[in-house]
Amino acid sequence: MYVVLVYDVEVKRVNKMLKLCRQYLHWVQNSVFEGELSERDLEILKKKAEMLLSGEDSVIIYTLQDGNWLNREILGKEKGVIDNFIE
Amino acid sequence: MYVVLVYDVEVKRVNKMLKLCRQYLHWVQNSVFEGELSERDLEILKKKAEMLLSGEDSVIIYTLQDGNWLNREILGKEKGVIDNFIE
Repeated sequence: MYVVLVYDVEVKRVNKMLKLCRQYLHWVQNSVFEGELSERDLEILKKKAEMLLSGEDSVIIYTLQDGNWLNREILGKEKGVIDNFIE
Repeated sequence: MYVVLVYDVEVKRVNKMLKLCRQYLHWVQNSVFEGELSERDLEILKKKAEMLLSGEDSVIIYTLQDGNWLNREILGKEKGVIDNFIE
């Protein structure tokens, strides 16, 4: 499935969250990641993320069965360039 | 159409971007907004956002014809509670 993940975590946990997300997804913007993931990998990512989170930290995970349903447009600077760019 | 908007703008422009997005969408997390928008309103929002952006500022706009295609899960703290919550 196609995943868009957005996190909002306290500064002291940003590096760990960044590293975790990079293992599974492509970085597209400050605290935004995307990519195709199996259900199994998504479950692992969620469990690892939950272990990191604390206090006011928040992660939103959007999932779609088919990434083709999602259009993506960038205004301003394009920061991350991902391989599996949505058409 | 259903819209998820994520922005990454310099601190001095955050308030203006926040106000603009709130006029059209629901706030769900730090710099993340969602909502149902007509194509016309989306075009207006994009034009207004482009007028605000400068330097390294970046906005990603995800759109789907049908918000039901999108699942949303929150880990940690749920920050914004939106009216038209995705099932």
